Amino acid sequence: MSYRAPLDDMHFVLEEIAGLEALAQLPGFEDASGDLVESILGQAGRLAAEELAPLNHSGDREGASLQNGVVRTPKGFAEAYGHFVEGGWNGLTLPAEWGGHGLPYAVGAATVEMWNSANIAFALCPLLTAGAIDLLHAHGSEDQKQTYLPKMANGLWSGTMNLTEPQAGSDVGALKTKAVAENGHYKISGQKIYITHGEQDLSENIVHMVLARTAAAPAGSKGISLFIVPKFLPNPDGSLGERNDLRCISLEEKLGIHASPTCVMSYGDGGGAIGFLIGEENRGMEYMFTMMNAARIEVGIQGVAIAERALQQAVAYARNRKQSRALGAREAAPVAILEHADVRRNLATMRALTEAGRALAYAVGGAIDRSRHATDADTKALARAQEELLTPVVKSWLTDMGCQVASIGIQVHGGMGFIEETGAAQHYRDARILPIYEGTNGIQALDLVMRKILRDRGKGLTAVTAWLDGEVAKVTACSDAPVAALAADLGAALSAVEASGRWLLETAGEDLDRTAAGATPFLNQLGYTVGGIFLGVSAAAVARRLSTGRGDPAFNRRKIKTAAFYCANLLPYAAAEAARVKGGASSAQAFGPEDF
Amino acid sequence: MSYRAPLDDMHFVLEEIAGLEALAQLPGFEDASGDLVESILGQAGRLAAEELAPLNHSGDREGASLQNGVVRTPKGFAEAYGHFVEGGWNGLTLPAEWGGHGLPYAVGAATVEMWNSANIAFALCPLLTAGAIDLLHAHGSEDQKQTYLPKMANGLWSGTMNLTEPQAGSDVGALKTKAVAENGHYKISGQKIYITHGEQDLSENIVHMVLARTAAAPAGSKGISLFIVPKFLPNPDGSLGERNDLRCISLEEKLGIHASPTCVMSYGDGGGAIGFLIGEENRGMEYMFTMMNAARIEVGIQGVAIAERALQQAVAYARNRKQSRALGAREAAPVAILEHADVRRNLATMRALTEAGRALAYAVGGAIDRSRHATDADTKALARAQEELLTPVVKSWLTDMGCQVASIGIQVHGGMGFIEETGAAQHYRDARILPIYEGTNGIQALDLVMRKILRDRGKGLTAVTAWLDGEVAKVTACSDAPVAALAADLGAALSAVEASGRWLLETAGEDLDRTAAGATPFLNQLGYTVGGIFLGVSAAAVARRLSTGRGDPAFNRRKIKTAAFYCANLLPYAAAEAARVKGGASSAQAFGPEDF
Repeated sequence: MSYRAPLDDMHFVLEEIAGLEALAQLPGFEDASGDLVESILGQAGRLAAEELAPLNHSGDREGASLQNGVVRTPKGFAEAYGHFVEGGWNGLTLPAEWGGHGLPYAVGAATVEMWNSANIAFALCPLLTAGAIDLLHAHGSEDQKQTYLPKMANGLWSGTMNLTEPQAGSDVGALKTKAVAENGHYKISGQKIYITHGEQDLSENIVHMVLARTAAAPAGSKGISLFIVPKFLPNPDGSLGERNDLRCISLEEKLGIHASPTCVMSYGDGGGAIGFLIGEENRGMEYMFTMMNAARIEVGIQGVAIAERALQQAVAYARNRKQSRALGAREAAPVAILEHADVRRNLATMRALTEAGRALAYAVGGAIDRSRHATDADTKALARAQEELLTPVVKSWLTDMGCQVASIGIQVHGGMGFIEETGAAQHYRDARILPIYEGTNGIQALDLVMRKILRDRGKGLTAVTAWLDGEVAKVTACSDAPVAALAADLGAALSAVEASGRWLLETAGEDLDRTAAGATPFLNQLGYTVGGIFLGVSAAAVARRLSTGRGDPAFNRRKIKTAAFYCANLLPYAAAEAARVKGGASSAQAFGPEDF
Repeated sequence: MSYRAPLDDMHFVLEEIAGLEALAQLPGFEDASGDLVESILGQAGRLAAEELAPLNHSGDREGASLQNGVVRTPKGFAEAYGHFVEGGWNGLTLPAEWGGHGLPYAVGAATVEMWNSANIAFALCPLLTAGAIDLLHAHGSEDQKQTYLPKMANGLWSGTMNLTEPQAGSDVGALKTKAVAENGHYKISGQKIYITHGEQDLSENIVHMVLARTAAAPAGSKGISLFIVPKFLPNPDGSLGERNDLRCISLEEKLGIHASPTCVMSYGDGGGAIGFLIGEENRGMEYMFTMMNAARIEVGIQGVAIAERALQQAVAYARNRKQSRALGAREAAPVAILEHADVRRNLATMRALTEAGRALAYAVGGAIDRSRHATDADTKALARAQEELLTPVVKSWLTDMGCQVASIGIQVHGGMGFIEETGAAQHYRDARILPIYEGTNGIQALDLVMRKILRDRGKGLTAVTAWLDGEVAKVTACSDAPVAALAADLGAALSAVEASGRWLLETAGEDLDRTAAGATPFLNQLGYTVGGIFLGVSAAAVARRLSTGRGDPAFNRRKIKTAAFYCANLLPYAAAEAARVKGGASSAQAFGPEDF
C-alpha cells in the first residue's frame, strides 16, 4: 500500500502537454523555472510518500470522530498537517504578496494529485482551503485579504465551503440560511450539510465561506450573498479572538473518505454567528462561480490521483501474486499474474486511463494559467474557451474514470480485493464521492451543454475543436509511422465530436429536453476523444525524444504503447457515446414519470 | 429501502423468454403449471419483502461476528432462516423423492433473484446449500443422498463449498489440503479460505464440500478429490452425532456482504476431520464442474437481484426528492428529480440493464432445464450449447452490470448516496464481490473462449448464433413497426459477434495469448448483444399482447420503451467491445512485465 509520486510522467505532462516552459514566460510566473519545479515536485513527492501515504489506510480504519462538539481526526493527521504547513504547501499558487509562492496552477495540479493519491481524506482539508483562498483573493476586500490570506496561505487557518442545505443540493438557489445586517457585519443563522473539514483538530482557525440570504434578497440564486464566518473571530492584531456562534452538530457516516469529517454545521444557535460580507450583497453565486472551475478541476485531479494509487497497488500485487502456469507453457510452475493476458489488459487499461486523465487535467490547469496571466488576447481567449469547455469534462470524466480504475484495481486482486485489509477496497469507496460532490457529474454535463455550448451558440466549442485539430495534426506529422497511424482514429473521433456538437445545437432549438438527455453521453464522448488526443500528442513527443536520445527510453517506449492501447481499447467508447447522444436521447425521453 | 418482488416482469420473462409452458411438458416438471408457479412466486415474494428485506440494512450494519469459535449472524437472521426452512425453499428444484418440489431451475431462478434482492448476505446460505445439494444429487452414493439430501432440501442442514486456499485461488489445482484414507473414510487436514457461511447459527448442521488431495494423487487439478465433511457427524438414525474436527478460525473483514460470515476454516487441528469421499478419488474437479454452471448462473442472478433492488430504491428516491425547476419551466417550484432528463436517463439505464439481465439469466435457466430434462436429442443438444456458452456471460456480464447499476443508484441519490444510512451504498459494496467469486470474470471470459469456443472449433457458438438469428427474426416479423425496426441493429450486432468469433478461432492458431487478451471484450460484446436480442424478443411479445389486449397495457408499453432505449443506448457498447476484441488484443500484448 505504499505510494511513489509518478514524477517522470508528471514532468513529462507539465512540459509537453501543459506547456510549462511557455507558462514560465508569463508575467507573475517568472520564478517557475524547470529546476525549481523539479525541486518542488520532488519535495512534495517525498512528503506525500513518506508522511501522508502511510496514514491513508489507518485513517480510513479509525475515521474522524465527534465528541462534545470536538472533531478528532485519526492518529497522525495533526502531526502530518503540521509538516504540511511548515512546507508552505497551501499557498503554492497564491502570489507572493499574500504569502504564496506564485507558481502556475498547472504545477499546483501536480502537487494536488500527490496529496490526493497519498491520502485523499487528508488532502481535502487543503483542497477546500485553496478554494476559500481563491475566493478571498478574487473578491475579498483589501482588509479581508490582509486578515485572512497570509494565515490561510501558510495553512495555520483552513477554509471551508458552505453551500448545501437539506433542501438545497444541486439547486443551491433554494438555500435558506439567513444573514441579518448589524453594526457593520451580519448575523448568520441556519444549518449547512456536507461541510468537508467543517470542524477538525488540524488548523487553529477555520474560515467558513458561507452562502446565505439577506432579508430583502430576491428569491433563487440571485438573492444569495457570500460571507466569511470564522470559527474564531480574529483580533485586530491577527490573534484569535472570541469563539463564533457556530458548531458541528454531527458527522456523516459515509461510504468512504472516513478520515475526512463531513459535518452538519449549525450557525447562530446562540443568536447569530458573526459573518463578514464578501463584495456586494446578492452576488454570492457569481463569486462562487469564479472559483468553481479551479475547484472542479481539483476534484477531477482527485480522480486521477485515486486511479494512480489504485494502479500502483494493483501492479505491486500482480507482480508478487503467483497463480497458474503461463498460457501454453509446459512448466507447471505458476507465474506472476502480471503475465496473464487478461490481467495485463486490466493493468494496461488502468494505466491508459490514468495517464490520459493526468494529461487532460494538467492541460486544463495550463489553460487556467494562460487565461489568467497571458498578455496576448488571442491566447487568453483560446485559454478561456479551453478552461470553460473542458472543466466539466475534467470533473466528470476523470471522476468516473477514477471509480472505474479503482474497481479494476479490486478485480486484479481477486478475492483479496474484497478484504478491507488489502486496501484496494478503500480506493473504490473513497473514489465514489468524486462523481457526486462539487456538482454531480450530471450537473457538469448540463453545464457543458447548456452554459458552455448553447449559450454562445457553439463558438467556444468551435475554438476548442479547431485547437484539437491542430493537436491531431501533431500526431499526423510524427515521423514514427506507428504513432502517426494513430492520428486517423483520433481525427475521426474529433469529427464525431463536432457532429455531436452540431446535433446538440440544432436539437436545442426544437426540444431542449432532448438536448439535456444527450448531455452526459456527449461529455463522455468528448472525454474519451480529448484523452486520446493528448495521449497521441504524448506519443509524438516521446517519439521525438527517442530520436534525439532524450529521457528514459523505457518511459518513452511505454508511452507509445499506452497511446496505442488507448486508441485501440478506449477510443471505441467515444463512438459508442456518440451513438448514445443522438439515438439515445429521444428513447430516454419516451419514459414518463409513470413508467418508473 | 423496501423491496417488492417484480412479479409482473418475472412471470413475463418465465413465459416469453424461458419458455415455462414448454418446460412444464418435460418429464419431471409435470407439476410446474402456471397457476402453481404463480402461487409459489407470490409466496416467495412475500417472504422476501416482509421478512428478508427489512433485515438487509440492519444486517449490514451489525455484521456477522466470531467469538470463541461461534459465529453469530445479525439480529433476526436466525428467525428468518427458520421461516425460510418452514417454507421449504431450499429444495425447490430438487426432485420430490429427495424431499424437494421438483420445479424447473428457471422457476428457482426467480426465487433466487428475490432472496438476493431482499438480502444477499442471507441468501448466500441457501445459495451455497443449493450448490452442495446439486453435487450430492449428481455424484453422491445412494447412502450419502439418503443421509444428507432430505435434511439439506428442507434446510435444517446447510451446505458450503471449500475450494480456495491461500496459494490456490483461480488455480484450484494448486490446493494442498490432505485426505488420508482410514477405516472406510478419510482424515482431512488443511486450511480453506473464503468459505461463505462456513460457520453460522442458522442451521443445525453444516455439510462442507471439501476439495482435498489424497496421498498418491497426481499433481494439479487431476489429483483432487471431493469429500463430505459435516460439522456434526450424522448418526445412523439421522440425528446429530459427534462434533467433527473442523472450526472457523477467523472471519474476513470485507467491503460488503457484512452479514454473511466469510470464514477461514481449519480442518484437522485435532488429528483429522472425518470426511466421506464422493464418487471416486481424483475426480473432484470433474464433479465440481457439473454444478458450476448452476452456481455461476446463480451468481449472475445475484447481479440482477442487486440491480433490481438498487433500481427500486433509486426510483423511490427520485420520485420523492424535489430539486430545481423543470427545464424551461416558468414556475420556480422544484419538481421531483425523476422529471429531469439526466436522472430519467439514469433510471432508464438501470431498468434496461436489469430487465435485459433478468431475461438472459432466466433464459439460460430454461436451457439448463431442457439440457437435463428434454427427451428430444436436438432440443437437448441446443440447450446444452446455450447453457455452456452463455453461463460465463450470465456470470460476468450480469455481475459487472450489477455493480454498474448499483453505482448509478448512488448517483441518483446525489450526496445522500454516499451516506451509509441511505442504503444505496450498501448495494454498491455488496455487488462488488460478484465479479470476483465463483470464478473471477476474467476466468469466465477465458472459460468462454478457451473451453466453450476453441475446444469444439466454434461448433457450439455456431449453434447458439443460429438460434439467436431465429430470435432476431421474431423481432423482424413483429407487426408493430417501431419494434420491428429494432431488428436491424440487433441483427448487425449478432453478425459482429459471429465475426469476432471467427477472429478468435483464427487467431488462436497463430497466437493463443492474443486470443486470451480478446476474451473479456468478446464476452462483453456477446452480453450486450444477447441482452438486446432478449429485450427485442420481449418487445415483440408485448406488441402481440397489446394487440390482443392481454396483460397490463402500462407494463406492455413500458417494455417496448425499454427495448428501444436499450438498442439506442446500450447496444452501441457491443460495437465498442467488438472493436476492442480485434484491435485491442495486440496492443495489450505489447506490454511486457517490465512496463508495469
